[in-house]
Amino acid sequence: MRNSTRSGVDPFIVMDVMEAARRAEEAGRRIIHMEVGQPGTPAPQGARAALAQAMDDQPMGYTVALGLPALRARIAKLYGEWYDLDLNPERVVITPGSSGGFILAFTALFDAGDRVGIGAPGYPSYRQILRALDLVPVDIETAAENRLQPVSADLDGRDLQGLLVASPANPSGTMLGRDDLAALMEATAAQGASFISDEIYHGIEYEAKAVSALEISDEAYVINSFSKYFSMTGWRVGWMVVPEDHVRVVERLAQNLFICPPHASQVAALAAMDCHDELLANMEVYRANRALMLEGLPKAGFDRIAPPDGAFYVYADVSHITDDSRAFAAEILDQAGVAVTPGLDFDPVRGGGTIRFSYARATADIKEGLDRLVRFMKARGVV
Amino acid sequence: MRNSTRSGVDPFIVMDVMEAARRAEEAGRRIIHMEVGQPGTPAPQGARAALAQAMDDQPMGYTVALGLPALRARIAKLYGEWYDLDLNPERVVITPGSSGGFILAFTALFDAGDRVGIGAPGYPSYRQILRALDLVPVDIETAAENRLQPVSADLDGRDLQGLLVASPANPSGTMLGRDDLAALMEATAAQGASFISDEIYHGIEYEAKAVSALEISDEAYVINSFSKYFSMTGWRVGWMVVPEDHVRVVERLAQNLFICPPHASQVAALAAMDCHDELLANMEVYRANRALMLEGLPKAGFDRIAPPDGAFYVYADVSHITDDSRAFAAEILDQAGVAVTPGLDFDPVRGGGTIRFSYARATADIKEGLDRLVRFMKARGVV
Repeated sequence: MRNSTRSGVDPFIVMDVMEAARRAEEAGRRIIHMEVGQPGTPAPQGARAALAQAMDDQPMGYTVALGLPALRARIAKLYGEWYDLDLNPERVVITPGSSGGFILAFTALFDAGDRVGIGAPGYPSYRQILRALDLVPVDIETAAENRLQPVSADLDGRDLQGLLVASPANPSGTMLGRDDLAALMEATAAQGASFISDEIYHGIEYEAKAVSALEISDEAYVINSFSKYFSMTGWRVGWMVVPEDHVRVVERLAQNLFICPPHASQVAALAAMDCHDELLANMEVYRANRALMLEGLPKAGFDRIAPPDGAFYVYADVSHITDDSRAFAAEILDQAGVAVTPGLDFDPVRGGGTIRFSYARATADIKEGLDRLVRFMKARGVV
Repeated sequence: MRNSTRSGVDPFIVMDVMEAARRAEEAGRRIIHMEVGQPGTPAPQGARAALAQAMDDQPMGYTVALGLPALRARIAKLYGEWYDLDLNPERVVITPGSSGGFILAFTALFDAGDRVGIGAPGYPSYRQILRALDLVPVDIETAAENRLQPVSADLDGRDLQGLLVASPANPSGTMLGRDDLAALMEATAAQGASFISDEIYHGIEYEAKAVSALEISDEAYVINSFSKYFSMTGWRVGWMVVPEDHVRVVERLAQNLFICPPHASQVAALAAMDCHDELLANMEVYRANRALMLEGLPKAGFDRIAPPDGAFYVYADVSHITDDSRAFAAEILDQAGVAVTPGLDFDPVRGGGTIRFSYARATADIKEGLDRLVRFMKARGVV
């Protein structure tokens, strides 16, 4: 038996860092984790309590493919709370994580060979999921002066069937303003292409509120998740909002591809949405961490950074220090005991000169990590 | 925005039955559910207790993509217990349900346009998942004298890149004996095609033990799940065993397509594997239900049935009564208050003359359902 061509997806380069960190910890060394893209906090207490109760009361078999009606309704209500939108709950599709949302969106919208634009740097799995579905990822190399986000002029002559944007973005944390987002949606529609908006970091924003594509037009697939703001990564539950006339198609795909999202996770997610105190406390940690990063990173010589509007990442240009971010990350881990993500995972072309820092973990870790980075960069003669 | 061609998957015909049943129940009528393909029992008590405990103790973030090492090891041990096989845990991949297993297997093995043989009648989603991944499902119309299973001669001249078999099968409940399974695997390999064995109903078998493809050769993808024997449908957790030299490719696909299977479900699944008393009690219910079905269905005139070796289904040839199983199922629901699945979901060509009965629910329901079916068929003049 041989493997398909489309299964030849790239490895995550950060896996080398994580494995080296694991070995170092096994050997008794304390490592500060700035490579991990997930909260250190569990699901909110109220979410876990609701699930514990449901496990006693209900058989928890399959739900319908689109998800628990109460959860769909509660998410529709969230669009009122967050964006002042009146969203029809019928348009909300519960998915097995945002990963499930991408699989559903890509199969619902694109046929083999279709070309889908993605920003570089960007979430590495976009490219790999597209390839695994026999689609063609088209890298749009973004510019620092555009906050590392695509702009409408980038679409000219690309012959795209789709465009996928993320705001706040991973790895950069930058957001698209309303006008820029609207211009991208318009340019995409003008090409007859489909627009997908990854809004998984919404809620984790610091100075301005993130804009949803749905504030601009209903002609978009919006993908979100309980992983980040609701601190439920391992639960694999997310959602998607699709145009009204796409619901039936997505429902049939979901019935066949997934049967349903995990029932237990849906129950927990529904309760999580009302755990405001805990979620706001998490946000206060991110906010404090971000302030430490913005102060500490430049002191360590990492002063060429994208504006971290949201999420819990800082993406740093280190091309004045190295053109091999993989080796540089290995050096930081070895010398400073801090794990970071080489930019090559996010940008195959320019990522040799960038790294991503995550500040999702406890504030004490962030402080310690920054101290270590300063000492390391001083020893290296950079600062 | 328009939908892709590959998203044009067929609706489940049974959905009409389920919707009509729901409306009847809303109107106060008691419906017996013989259409549902899932246990009425919850996850084992020990599984739920383990999860409740873990929720107090652990953050339950992402697991590694291949799943919790302890769960992979426990599944490897199951292959010793069930088949007397010594299985390397490294070959076990935890998946988001068997659905996730199919997506991983199909993308790991096949490129767009590849032809994959599936038996008809068969699980409807095989065909739809293949189509959604731009693959070509090739229906193999099986014969009653072959227990509604494909035989090696069926592969001649089909130009297949893959063959997918299921034993025990849905909807028929029939199993492939060791020699027939070996012959199919040999014929598949002789064509240079890949072999996938759906073993999701293993454990639910009555007179002989189901044979795993791994007892014959390691050159197969074996897909299984906690949904059926372990009574955990809504938890969306399953597993796949792949050849040793395919593990890395599947791991990279899984990292990108799913990140990981639901953590909570993995914790529950691990504990479920040692809840022997409860699982055996479930089996005793299926066994009693099956005996009732084998006695009661012929009395109701459903005497042309596939040998129900395993699973919890009886597939009946009703072509002497109707050539429109959809209308017949609607009639049974309306007149008898029993929901059954029209064969058209499983066999687009011949399914107009077949229906599937499920006996997964409580024994009292099965008794009541059979009584109703006898009265209905007497009134209809069939018996």
